[in-house]
Amino acid sequence: MPKLDSVLACLDLNIGRSVERLSDLLKIPSISTDPAYAGDCRRAAEWLAGDLDAIGFKASVRDTTGHPMVVAHHDGPEGSPHVLFYGHYDVQPVDPLNLWESEPFDPQLKTMPDGSKRIVGRGSADDKGQLMTFVEACRAWKAETGGLPCKVTIFLEGEEESGSPSLLPFLDAHREELSADVALICDTNMWDKDTPAISTGLRGLVGEEVTITAADKDLHSGYFGGAAANPIRILAEIIADLHDENGAVTLPGFYDGVPELPAEQRAIWDGLGFDERAFLGQVNLSVPAGEKGRSVLEQTWSRPTAEVNGITGGYTGKGFKTVIASQATAKISFRLVFDQDPQKIRDAFRAFVTERLPADCSVEFHEHGASPAIQLPFDSPVLQTARAALSAEWPKPAVMIGMGGSIPVVGEFKRLLSMGSLLIGFGLGDDQIHSPDEKYELTSFHKGQRSWARVLAALGENGAKG
Amino acid sequence: MPKLDSVLACLDLNIGRSVERLSDLLKIPSISTDPAYAGDCRRAAEWLAGDLDAIGFKASVRDTTGHPMVVAHHDGPEGSPHVLFYGHYDVQPVDPLNLWESEPFDPQLKTMPDGSKRIVGRGSADDKGQLMTFVEACRAWKAETGGLPCKVTIFLEGEEESGSPSLLPFLDAHREELSADVALICDTNMWDKDTPAISTGLRGLVGEEVTITAADKDLHSGYFGGAAANPIRILAEIIADLHDENGAVTLPGFYDGVPELPAEQRAIWDGLGFDERAFLGQVNLSVPAGEKGRSVLEQTWSRPTAEVNGITGGYTGKGFKTVIASQATAKISFRLVFDQDPQKIRDAFRAFVTERLPADCSVEFHEHGASPAIQLPFDSPVLQTARAALSAEWPKPAVMIGMGGSIPVVGEFKRLLSMGSLLIGFGLGDDQIHSPDEKYELTSFHKGQRSWARVLAALGENGAKG
Repeated sequence: MPKLDSVLACLDLNIGRSVERLSDLLKIPSISTDPAYAGDCRRAAEWLAGDLDAIGFKASVRDTTGHPMVVAHHDGPEGSPHVLFYGHYDVQPVDPLNLWESEPFDPQLKTMPDGSKRIVGRGSADDKGQLMTFVEACRAWKAETGGLPCKVTIFLEGEEESGSPSLLPFLDAHREELSADVALICDTNMWDKDTPAISTGLRGLVGEEVTITAADKDLHSGYFGGAAANPIRILAEIIADLHDENGAVTLPGFYDGVPELPAEQRAIWDGLGFDERAFLGQVNLSVPAGEKGRSVLEQTWSRPTAEVNGITGGYTGKGFKTVIASQATAKISFRLVFDQDPQKIRDAFRAFVTERLPADCSVEFHEHGASPAIQLPFDSPVLQTARAALSAEWPKPAVMIGMGGSIPVVGEFKRLLSMGSLLIGFGLGDDQIHSPDEKYELTSFHKGQRSWARVLAALGENGAKG
Repeated sequence: MPKLDSVLACLDLNIGRSVERLSDLLKIPSISTDPAYAGDCRRAAEWLAGDLDAIGFKASVRDTTGHPMVVAHHDGPEGSPHVLFYGHYDVQPVDPLNLWESEPFDPQLKTMPDGSKRIVGRGSADDKGQLMTFVEACRAWKAETGGLPCKVTIFLEGEEESGSPSLLPFLDAHREELSADVALICDTNMWDKDTPAISTGLRGLVGEEVTITAADKDLHSGYFGGAAANPIRILAEIIADLHDENGAVTLPGFYDGVPELPAEQRAIWDGLGFDERAFLGQVNLSVPAGEKGRSVLEQTWSRPTAEVNGITGGYTGKGFKTVIASQATAKISFRLVFDQDPQKIRDAFRAFVTERLPADCSVEFHEHGASPAIQLPFDSPVLQTARAALSAEWPKPAVMIGMGGSIPVVGEFKRLLSMGSLLIGFGLGDDQIHSPDEKYELTSFHKGQRSWARVLAALGENGAKG
């Protein structure tokens, strides 16, 4: 019997025990945002360090100025890759308590009318259930083979639900200890219950504020109208120029470092059955508005954008004033993908504006942050390895998706540790995280463990290089 | 000796007496904005009614809820035109008093180092000195010929410096009495000390507020950026579309009713020696920004405009938010000239915006007023008559100029009495109206009287039809 098969069999055999362990962890009310639960947060950290020690990790609870971190190390075979697993043991508050069907910290295994089972309780999906899928996979590997296929560091924080104030200083102080070939993060959802998903990155961002000044005071449009430059109009013309008739951004060099979506990837996304109308319909829109010929998924997951986030100039109060403003200001941001260079984008934008300034007008720019995209190429070996491993477990092949909201830890891993991240999670859209009756499907928990067992095996065999 | 020559000679002979009369009027502190001077305002009105009665007018002081009006009538020859002369007897406050070289209400005739003489005192130029030029011309006509060349109504208000609250109700209640062929208004400046000017009208105005709505809530640009319509960008594109590359307004039909400047008129304006750089330089601009190939004077006096007076959308506070706004709003005004139809301009603008709305976006319009231009054609007979009469008096020919600031009475005359206005004044740019040491050049006062004597003669001869 090959090693992986016996590990998977072990996980199947012990699913009952693993649910009991998760229940023990779920009983600890580790609400990070409420100081009354600081002791419970520490208890959860200690419970995890104890469990990891029991598996054979060298685990420790590390103090911070907030809630403690858990760091655990386990060697892999000579020459095997080093992976860092990230999760968080803290949970959201439970209000409104009266909407819960059962006690939030008295976890229940419930059987639904369709026969499916779910674990109900605060933290079951976000993120205790998810992080335990990885822990259980390691436990089974150790139990069946005496070791792990890779060198593994497990890094768990207790402040994810309260802004992660200790994360950056901790990472900065432990760069060497925490640097690995790749980070595995289990805090996201599947595409649907049959289709696992790997989020391979986040779009970057360049924020710019541009103020155009014409006259040195506001003017009366009767006296000066027609003869004096109007900075609102100039700004509007520049904004209008930023996109061409097909919705593409016109900054020279803007698409440098932006690969076309591989045909295979496009076909996968097109095949996801994503309901564009439903997605847009939730905000009363119906027609994708971006680059022509590109789907909503392609646009939001793999294409850069230029958006005006705010504009102001002249008289904006009630009624009317026939003023020609001295100044107009816009806040403009660029979402970046793949290898776009934030500084080059900023420079290109500033040159674009400056070139379009008519005589007599001046411009001031203010920087509002710059971060590159964090995105593994679709053909990156580690991604393909993880994808194949996941696809072997689930009814449908794994899909690589983009990320909308930002996950700060991904950026910090990249910036401080030069480490890419694979976001692989087994949550579902109806898990009610942050809400009453939070649940985690037993299928998610069980097949999540099996997924990690497979991913670890595959990474051990193929390496974890981006 | 022709009648006009003897009238002019009479004015020359009596200049000393006319200065004394003006001084008597200037001694009355008719500050309309300060209730403490209400009695003085009435005294000024009574002084004027008395003086007009003495000349031979049928004059009366008419009560209002504010300061009184003076209305005086005098017949003209059978079939002669009817002109209405408008002026105001109220004056600005005198603060700061310590900056006056002489007492504001103790008028002085001062001789300057270059030998020129000026009348110094509050109201000397604005508007008592100006209105008395017309009264003295009538006095001389009566003295020399026993009559006036036209039917003349003199209408003087006492609230011009305090918002004219009684003007509209008074005009409305006395439409028939005050309607004439043309209004003559003496409350403006010459082009320069050698060049008389006739302001022939005011630009009209259409005010529009346009709000574009895309999604029904503000969106996160990470999640929706690229896929969701951005109303700021749509609004910017519409604003940018409003002008072509030559600075002309692109609304279909916008220039209907806008005649090209007659070559002769253009030559006159070009010959005025108007210093565009100095005009723009006062607000830190240097290059005319409007329609290419048209001078600043042509643009501000005879061309319509489209200006964005205000714009707002999205996040405009400190810092940055990566929001895609639900709405963006702009306030846009059109300055109208000649025969442009405000309603057609409004309709054209709304159609222009609506045609450019992408799918999913809606627009709301709010109206902020509409007034047509009030402008006599350059070839109008009454204008040519007045121009010839003025040109005969001064070293340089009279020029027809446009008006920047609005003079409400002109609009009310047009709206309520269907009466056009000729604005002919003899003030100079350095008269310091509204400031300490207000003055009126003796030349302005004397040649102003002679100018009106000539204008009355010419209108009597040629008629006063627009």
